[in-house]
Amino acid sequence: MNGRMIARILGTVLLLLAAFLLLPLIVGLIYGENVLGFALTIALSAALGIALLLCLKPKSTEIYAREGFAAVGLVWIMMSLIGALPLVLSGDIPRYIDAVFEVTSGFTTTGASVLPNVEALSRSGQFWRIFTHWLGGMGVLVFVMAVMPLSGDRSMHIMRAEVPGPTVGKLVPRARKTAMILYLIYLGLTLAETVFLLFGGMSFYEALLHAFASAGTGGFSTRAASIGAFNSAYIEIVIGVFLILFGTNFNLYYLVLAGRTKEALKSEELHWLWGIIAVSVAAIAIGIRPIYGSIAAALRHAFFNVTTIISTTGFGTEDFTKWPGYVQTLLVCLMLIGGCAGSTGGGLKISRVILLVKTAAADMRKMVRPRSVNRVSLDGQRVSRETTSAVYTYFALYMLILLGCAFLVSFDGYDFATNFTAALSCMSNIGPGLSLIGPAGSFGIFSDFSKIVMSLTMLCGRLEIYAILILFLPSTWRKNG
Amino acid sequence: MNGRMIARILGTVLLLLAAFLLLPLIVGLIYGENVLGFALTIALSAALGIALLLCLKPKSTEIYAREGFAAVGLVWIMMSLIGALPLVLSGDIPRYIDAVFEVTSGFTTTGASVLPNVEALSRSGQFWRIFTHWLGGMGVLVFVMAVMPLSGDRSMHIMRAEVPGPTVGKLVPRARKTAMILYLIYLGLTLAETVFLLFGGMSFYEALLHAFASAGTGGFSTRAASIGAFNSAYIEIVIGVFLILFGTNFNLYYLVLAGRTKEALKSEELHWLWGIIAVSVAAIAIGIRPIYGSIAAALRHAFFNVTTIISTTGFGTEDFTKWPGYVQTLLVCLMLIGGCAGSTGGGLKISRVILLVKTAAADMRKMVRPRSVNRVSLDGQRVSRETTSAVYTYFALYMLILLGCAFLVSFDGYDFATNFTAALSCMSNIGPGLSLIGPAGSFGIFSDFSKIVMSLTMLCGRLEIYAILILFLPSTWRKNG
Repeated sequence: MNGRMIARILGTVLLLLAAFLLLPLIVGLIYGENVLGFALTIALSAALGIALLLCLKPKSTEIYAREGFAAVGLVWIMMSLIGALPLVLSGDIPRYIDAVFEVTSGFTTTGASVLPNVEALSRSGQFWRIFTHWLGGMGVLVFVMAVMPLSGDRSMHIMRAEVPGPTVGKLVPRARKTAMILYLIYLGLTLAETVFLLFGGMSFYEALLHAFASAGTGGFSTRAASIGAFNSAYIEIVIGVFLILFGTNFNLYYLVLAGRTKEALKSEELHWLWGIIAVSVAAIAIGIRPIYGSIAAALRHAFFNVTTIISTTGFGTEDFTKWPGYVQTLLVCLMLIGGCAGSTGGGLKISRVILLVKTAAADMRKMVRPRSVNRVSLDGQRVSRETTSAVYTYFALYMLILLGCAFLVSFDGYDFATNFTAALSCMSNIGPGLSLIGPAGSFGIFSDFSKIVMSLTMLCGRLEIYAILILFLPSTWRKNG
Repeated sequence: MNGRMIARILGTVLLLLAAFLLLPLIVGLIYGENVLGFALTIALSAALGIALLLCLKPKSTEIYAREGFAAVGLVWIMMSLIGALPLVLSGDIPRYIDAVFEVTSGFTTTGASVLPNVEALSRSGQFWRIFTHWLGGMGVLVFVMAVMPLSGDRSMHIMRAEVPGPTVGKLVPRARKTAMILYLIYLGLTLAETVFLLFGGMSFYEALLHAFASAGTGGFSTRAASIGAFNSAYIEIVIGVFLILFGTNFNLYYLVLAGRTKEALKSEELHWLWGIIAVSVAAIAIGIRPIYGSIAAALRHAFFNVTTIISTTGFGTEDFTKWPGYVQTLLVCLMLIGGCAGSTGGGLKISRVILLVKTAAADMRKMVRPRSVNRVSLDGQRVSRETTSAVYTYFALYMLILLGCAFLVSFDGYDFATNFTAALSCMSNIGPGLSLIGPAGSFGIFSDFSKIVMSLTMLCGRLEIYAILILFLPSTWRKNG
């Protein structure tokens, strides 16, 4: 284990965190708020970062998969622990555990909130809370890689640990350039959404923050009633469309930019995403039509809620815990599926679901006709047995962690639907669940113990399990090997 | 596909079904009931069986895995469809769909009931309803194999499809003798339980029926209040102990009979079973102590409910939907785990859970140290990559069918906990769930559509998915190959 190299990565991220914290500090200065909390956290973060970089110089910059995973896991935990400080110091969220939960929920783009009233936050606190979505969406280490050389082409190991999906394709031979392209597309889409929201009558401040929250598929809002507060079909359609875009594999945008649009449109994952959205919107619109009277209103609410759930964002307009039972169960299924691989969406990822279904079908065919050839392919390319087997392992771990979280949370004494969907919501990085934690509810009802369990679950979900689990494995920290 | 051989198997089972139906007919005659329904069903079943055997003589007795799975799937569906007839004809369960659900729930040893009042049934109808548990527990085709030669040593394919667990070990080289030994142990344990229950003051009729229901880990009872009606600590302890015995791998009893007790006691699966039971009883007793006052009463109720749930029986004494939230979530986890492989219990099976955990740990270690050797072993024997991969596939299919069933059932409009635990209860062959279908509830609340979906789910759970799924696969029925 190259511990000094991990220290170097941690130090670099701490410096970066200090730099990013300047943004809410500036926002605070503009609005004439007390920004002492931000200033102190910047000083602390920068000092720690410099200390790590100066005191622990790596002898070699070589890193392997285990360093990649461990570094990513540690970086994310550290960001959550330090990122929570300014909110406590400013008094926005007086209790540290609550602040850690809120910021972890931000970085992991979950969007579950413990706050009783989000509109009571200071402008700078609100900016930081929602900006964490944007940072966490594409990944902080991917950003680091885009702006500075970390560890040569070995840094692919870091990218693999932070970018979601069963396989990570390099767009271009150099990992650094891949990271840069991803961030430029991300930035471009975010700015485009901001402009569209400005046209919908939002202030620049709110348009920017909601674009951040959409880009990361996070779901925090400046309003207590979330997107419902604006009561505008235009805004809901703009956000819904952008959520589909942010829930799409970013590699496809690179293909489009490279003039290979035809190839991008052939993506199986894209067809499944569109298909699932179309079928779900239709099924839900039929079910909720009696509530809203007209089919147009039913389609509007179905479209917005399907996009916000499948992209694992969790913005709210309507309280879907009051919708019919099958609609709620369908939404739970969408929560589990999530967005595309290589997008900012959470959940299992659509490509994994495709591989799960295809492999199961191939295994069944094999049983019927043992001599037949049963290959699993995706986008015309054969998928190795190793990859499909990894997908099954991932699915099993996903369900085990989900059930484990639901079990630990259940000690708080709430009902089964609350416990199960709280765990699912954290694992899939969504935000709302059913029953007590629906769009109108709050995670503030849970105990400190549950908040810690859920924070770890959110990190497991965002970092696709291994980067967090590896930290709890004794053999990671053994000297030899 | 050797269709004629499947027809022969179906014909044989129909004759056997006719023979077994003589038992409730005799019970009916003893109690002076109208047994016309049983007589007609026996005639129909026998006639159909003879017709199949005479008209479709197989050219070859060779069968492969696909014939084995398809035959088992068809046999079980046919048994449920025909086994429901006498209950409809006698007027015990007037609606055919309800009767099919009830009998499927019986054969699959689920024990979920749609009846408003089980005590209103005729004696013969009650006997048949509960006797299906005993038949389904060890498997009807295993019985066929024990009493007549089916297809030489090829019949292992049938046994594999009907006996639960990730791998099926032959006890002795000949499949027929293995089947015979299994049934003798099963019969012996059932009789022993009957005797113990007689000592507890039950009538012979009730002792026998509750022994049948325990043996199959089914859960139907002659009483509306289930075991709670007897209000006897002795009866609860006897049944609890026997449920553990029936939830244990029967291969271990064979080892004990063969004088290899030491080897049997070394079984990892057994240690996990005992460990899970011990921890769960302790955890639940602590949680429910405030409800029952004394620690002795809490232990008694915790012990009975843990054994009845982990063995996937589902007998009721207390309404656990009124117990604390974490106890309910723990019970849901036990529902998912289930009994040992090679037992009459349902669920995922403990050995699969062990392999899931061990493989995941090995995969993680591999990630940390790619060059290390990471073998998964069970009982000191190395488990092949093929088996562990099959376990992962099984787990994924299990969860997908469970969620699919929950989704389809949710159209009835009940709450999420009801839908989810109804699906889990059917898939794991338990009986009760949470919320509306707790120990005091009834599956009668569901629509006919849901009852059909749940019946298929129960069959998927009992036959471990493939025997049912294979029937829906087009390639099973194609001519060539």
